[in-house]
Order: sequence, then C-alpha cells, then structure tokens
Amino acid sequence: MPLNCTAFFVSDRTGITAEMLGHSILTQFDDITFAEITVPFVDTEDKAWETVARINRTALSDATRPLVFSTLVNEQVSAIVQQAEALYLDCFQVFIAPIEAELGFKSSHTVGRSHSVRNNDYYNRMDAVNFALAADDGQSVKDLEAADIILVGVSRSGKTPTCLYLSLQYGIRAANYPLIPEDFDAMRLPGSLNGHRSKLFGLTIRPERLHRIRNERRPGSRYASMQNCEHEVRAAEALMRQESVPVLDTTTRSIEELATVILHEANLQRHIY
Amino acid sequence: MPLNCTAFFVSDRTGITAEMLGHSILTQFDDITFAEITVPFVDTEDKAWETVARINRTALSDATRPLVFSTLVNEQVSAIVQQAEALYLDCFQVFIAPIEAELGFKSSHTVGRSHSVRNNDYYNRMDAVNFALAADDGQSVKDLEAADIILVGVSRSGKTPTCLYLSLQYGIRAANYPLIPEDFDAMRLPGSLNGHRSKLFGLTIRPERLHRIRNERRPGSRYASMQNCEHEVRAAEALMRQESVPVLDTTTRSIEELATVILHEANLQRHIY
Repeated sequence: MPLNCTAFFVSDRTGITAEMLGHSILTQFDDITFAEITVPFVDTEDKAWETVARINRTALSDATRPLVFSTLVNEQVSAIVQQAEALYLDCFQVFIAPIEAELGFKSSHTVGRSHSVRNNDYYNRMDAVNFALAADDGQSVKDLEAADIILVGVSRSGKTPTCLYLSLQYGIRAANYPLIPEDFDAMRLPGSLNGHRSKLFGLTIRPERLHRIRNERRPGSRYASMQNCEHEVRAAEALMRQESVPVLDTTTRSIEELATVILHEANLQRHIY
Repeated sequence: MPLNCTAFFVSDRTGITAEMLGHSILTQFDDITFAEITVPFVDTEDKAWETVARINRTALSDATRPLVFSTLVNEQVSAIVQQAEALYLDCFQVFIAPIEAELGFKSSHTVGRSHSVRNNDYYNRMDAVNFALAADDGQSVKDLEAADIILVGVSRSGKTPTCLYLSLQYGIRAANYPLIPEDFDAMRLPGSLNGHRSKLFGLTIRPERLHRIRNERRPGSRYASMQNCEHEVRAAEALMRQESVPVLDTTTRSIEELATVILHEANLQRHIY
C-alpha cells in the first residue's frame, strides 16, 4: 500500500537549502508519496507558532506524522517549532556540534548569513546576467572577447538556459553561438569563433529530443523535421569532434548538471558563491 | 589568531546540495576562514580514491583537518572517502536513519535522483526561460496575458535577473515591464498593464544603489544622476502605493530571496521542483 506523508521545509530565510537537501533525501524513499511544503521567513516567535499550528493541522489529517526539515538558526524560534507533532530534523544543528568540537570554536548562531547580499556578488551576478543576455545566440560578436566560456551547438540544444544558469549561479560570463547549416556545408566553425578556440564548449542533444523541442515551436516545419534534426546533430557532432571542441550531451542532464560539468571540465573560476 | 580550514563538498552528482548546506553552516563560524572546494561526480571507486588523495594532501598542508560535507549515496564510494584524514559529515545518511525508523520503510540508496531530468520539469523550465526572455522589459505586450506574474519598477531595479531566476528555479512565467518618466508625469500605470493588475508585483531600490548601478552603464548621464534616481524611485514608489501594487525593496536582498518572497507573497504555483 502506498504511503502518503507531508514534509515541511522550515527556514528563517528563503528555505532553499532545507528544500534542496530535504527533497534530495525524500527521493531516496521510493515507496512513499510526499507532499512538500516550504515555509520560509519564519523569523519571529509568532510565525513559529503559526507554523506549529499548520504542521499540527496536517498531522491530524495525514495518516503519518509530518517530517520537518529545519534550517532555523534562532534557538527560541526553533524550540517552538520542535513542539509540533512531527519528526523534527535539524539540518544545521546536527553538523554544528561536531564542527565546533573539531575546530574548538563556537558558532555564532546568526540568522540569514548564507544568501545575504554581498556587494561584489551582486555586481558580479548582474554583470554576468547582462552579459549572457547581450551575448545570447551570437548577437554580439565583440562580446566573445570578454566571455569566460562560449557554448556552441545547433539551435535549441540548450545553450541559452545553460548560459543563464552559469551567470546567475556562478557569475560566469557565458556567451553562446549557434552552429547552422552553412557551417555544416563548409564543415568549418564560424569565422567569428577564430581566436576563441580555447573557450569553446559544445552542447549536443539526441535528434528525437531536438525534433520534439523544435516541433513545439515550429510544428511541421522542415527545421523541426526528424530528418533535418538528425542531419544537423550528426554534422554538428562531427564538426566539433574535428575541431577538438569538448562536447556534452544535454538530453539526459538537468541545467544544474550541465552548468556544474562545464564549470569543472572547463576549469572556470566562479565569481560568486 | 584567525584559523584557516578547508571544506570539501563531495557528491556523486553536481555537489550543489552539499555546497549549499555546507556553505550555510560554515557562515556560522565567524572566526574561521574557510577555503571551499566542490568535488562533483565522484561516482566510481577510482574517483573516490582520487578524492581521498586530494583531501589528504590538503590535510598535510593545512594546520587543521579538512571538513568533508558528503552527499554520496553509494555505500562503497562513501566508505572509501570516509578513510580520508578529515572530519566526515554525511548530509544524507544522518537523516535517512531517523526517517526510516519513523516511516517504517527502507530508503533505496539510489544515486542521482534529485537533479535528474524529469520530462515535464525540462519542458516547463525551457518554456519559462523562453518566456522570460521574450517578455523582458515590456518587449512583448501580448505575453502579459500568459504571464504568471509581471514585475514592474524603474530601469535597473532588478526586474530582469529576478524574472530569469523565477523561470529557471521555479518554472514561473515571469514578465517585466518598466516604469518610465512618462508614467510618473501622468502618475498612472502604463495602459498595457490594464487588465493585469492582479499579477503586478513592484520592485524598488534605494536611490544611492540605483545611482551606482546606472552610473556603471552610463557614467555621468542625467539618467544615472543621483537627483534623477531619487526622483524616479520616489515617484515609482508613490505610483505603486497609489495603485496598491505590492512592493519589495531589492537593495538588501539576494536574487534567491527576492524570488522566494515573490513566490510566496503572490501565492504562485511553482511548475518545477
């Protein structure tokens, strides 16, 4: 019999850390269907009591006690939420004690350090996002000079979202440049990319997936046809191999994975943490 | 005396979860300077041994033992990395046992579930990113109809990166529309926004910050002048108040925080997890 359970991610800030960790852990439980609820900005005792009431209402209606993944730092707030009818899992405290013991230093128990605005982070990020927008789809050739990395690949192979993620998450200046049928006829990289060979990183995609994606935008077009997608992907892969451009298949990878692989394989320096 | 310590974030996938949790925890230790190193895709025993060697080299050169935040799921791999000369902190296992006890189910110990590509997630995300790009800066008025949310505010108040983050992280269709001097002269929202009032969410920013940001792009311009920034911000805030548009100050908030606050306050349904 499938089991249902509610998981709360409770935080005094955005809840993103609790949500990410908790969600990863819950995916390890195949047999259980989880309802996942994020409760951010629980930063006063009043809000803590509201959260307790909400968890307790769920406890009454569910067949199992809820799980609470907490990244609450304030001890008063955390002590209140722990009174809820739930399994309380403290994502910070469980690690803080062994680290304190190891290093012989006490932690500061300060709320909301991790995502606070640090000035350089802010500017680096804005800068990188503006750069990615300006340098999208080969729009601005002179930006290739300033890029940390240049993604190449056929239209709709995932270049734009990967560039945006690299810029938002890591502050990387990511440009992208499409490979088009003319390039395949000549079996040569676009001339604008000369002199930037060391920055190139290729994306590829399975033809069936590309066909499906293109067909949503331009149903029934030659551009979206299975035959054309097969041709373009095969030619692009051959061209990138010929030119020794490293290639990553986007078909089975999430944006986070693509960005992480590129960051590490291209040995890029992240500008924000 | 300040203490230096190296923290490794070790994962069989991207390492983003270990990095985020570990980084949050480390910010609680004020007196210690941490070097933070992410080691992703440790998914074979060979890579585990390489990681051990790398940690041990650091242990030799540092004055303190390194910390290892691990989200390794594979037990063989994890058993190897635990042999490194470091404090090993297992971000998953520490929670899995109490959850198993609570629910009476065993976890599946499967690698790489959390960021794997789920088809709908992929399409929802691509769709939302394409939407955000098309609907940036009031470019496409007809897209306002399809938007989940429309951010308004003066030029450079943070609308574009917030929209992109909402789309990449949550699959939200976020449009944005600038408030410009003509709107302030008339003290009326742009006509295109009529009929979409319930979707509006305002961003504001401190004039000094706006001045600094604009001045980087257009140094010495009237547009970037302190006086003009003060005028625009004051007028935009008055207009949004008059029209009952909820307003968020972006000055001291990170993109993650802005996106989370908007998600919750506007009661938006996220389309990806």
